[in-house]
Amino acid sequence: MAIKVHGHPLSPPTRRVLLTLAEKDLEYEFIYVDLATGQQKKDSFLSMNPFGQVPVFEDGDLKLFESRAITKYISYAYADKGTALLVQDPKKIAIIGVWLEVEAHKFDAAGNKLSYEILIKPVLGLTTDEASVEQMQAQLGTVLDIYEKRLAESKYLGGDNYSLVDLHHVPIINNLMKTKVKALFEQRPHVNAWSTDILARPAWQKVLDKL
Amino acid sequence: MAIKVHGHPLSPPTRRVLLTLAEKDLEYEFIYVDLATGQQKKDSFLSMNPFGQVPVFEDGDLKLFESRAITKYISYAYADKGTALLVQDPKKIAIIGVWLEVEAHKFDAAGNKLSYEILIKPVLGLTTDEASVEQMQAQLGTVLDIYEKRLAESKYLGGDNYSLVDLHHVPIINNLMKTKVKALFEQRPHVNAWSTDILARPAWQKVLDKL
Repeated sequence: MAIKVHGHPLSPPTRRVLLTLAEKDLEYEFIYVDLATGQQKKDSFLSMNPFGQVPVFEDGDLKLFESRAITKYISYAYADKGTALLVQDPKKIAIIGVWLEVEAHKFDAAGNKLSYEILIKPVLGLTTDEASVEQMQAQLGTVLDIYEKRLAESKYLGGDNYSLVDLHHVPIINNLMKTKVKALFEQRPHVNAWSTDILARPAWQKVLDKL
Repeated sequence: MAIKVHGHPLSPPTRRVLLTLAEKDLEYEFIYVDLATGQQKKDSFLSMNPFGQVPVFEDGDLKLFESRAITKYISYAYADKGTALLVQDPKKIAIIGVWLEVEAHKFDAAGNKLSYEILIKPVLGLTTDEASVEQMQAQLGTVLDIYEKRLAESKYLGGDNYSLVDLHHVPIINNLMKTKVKALFEQRPHVNAWSTDILARPAWQKVLDKL
């Protein structure tokens, strides 16, 4: 198989890449990286990603890291396969570009931290920082207020169609739905309908079933 | 004029957009946003960017926010003007995509914080947090170690040619060169040559002269 993903089943960035491959109906080989023993900090892994983080992606001789760079590559290189995740029209892709940045800088800053504090820390035997949880919930609420207005105007964040913008949110929203943070989504009708919609897509179910 | 930039002369994201326009030899109207009086939080501004941050960019009826989305739009929409900042080849643009993410998530996390702590806080009458400066300097050093290896292999971060990746670094590096953090760049020969090169480009001088 030409496509390989080196990652961890519980890593949201790894899942972001697997979901993109599932939407594109692409086959791949999954290579498990044992984060618990620090495999991602060994030379063999650092030669693929000097930052020592999962996932790493291979497509033939092309090696990539940074999940959002990988998903963009897949979306363009396999534009004709499966679900269209990016568009060619310069103005439409510019709007998608804005909301891709919003996910990466605004949503993820709060969402990823909440997922880590509430779900991951207890697994690692660490104590959740409740003050940080409060602060991040307030920050996420502000972002979701803006999403609520946006989603009242267009069905998806990037426009009328599901795109890479919505997809990038899925792994973290999936985690947050298992926590009290779920309420922040349910309190906002358009956000609630949107998050329910994007979590119910067959491609995401396929990823969860496989992991 | 069709292109308008709503921004602040000292804002690194505003400068990132102005530098892209300068590399592309594009004319624009600059609209000063008075951050000191909170103009960016007023309804007229929030209708353009609900997050209340500069810059906002207009090209005819297209309105964009998030500096890195704006620079990508300019690079593609005006591909035939001025300096080529992005390429079409899927594998080459994928590599550029990886390093664009590295700038946004790794470099900026430390670099922007250092610029804020050392340069901006004193202007606002706030006290620099020296512990945070130490921590961020260590973090930036780790990033620059990886840059040093990368720049030993290719002249620019995204490949053999100057690209949007390098450009995105310029406003923060320009600020850090006025501080003790400069030493972190000078200690690494390839990083030093690269940062000197990208700061010396005529387009950046043009932006500084204009501001």
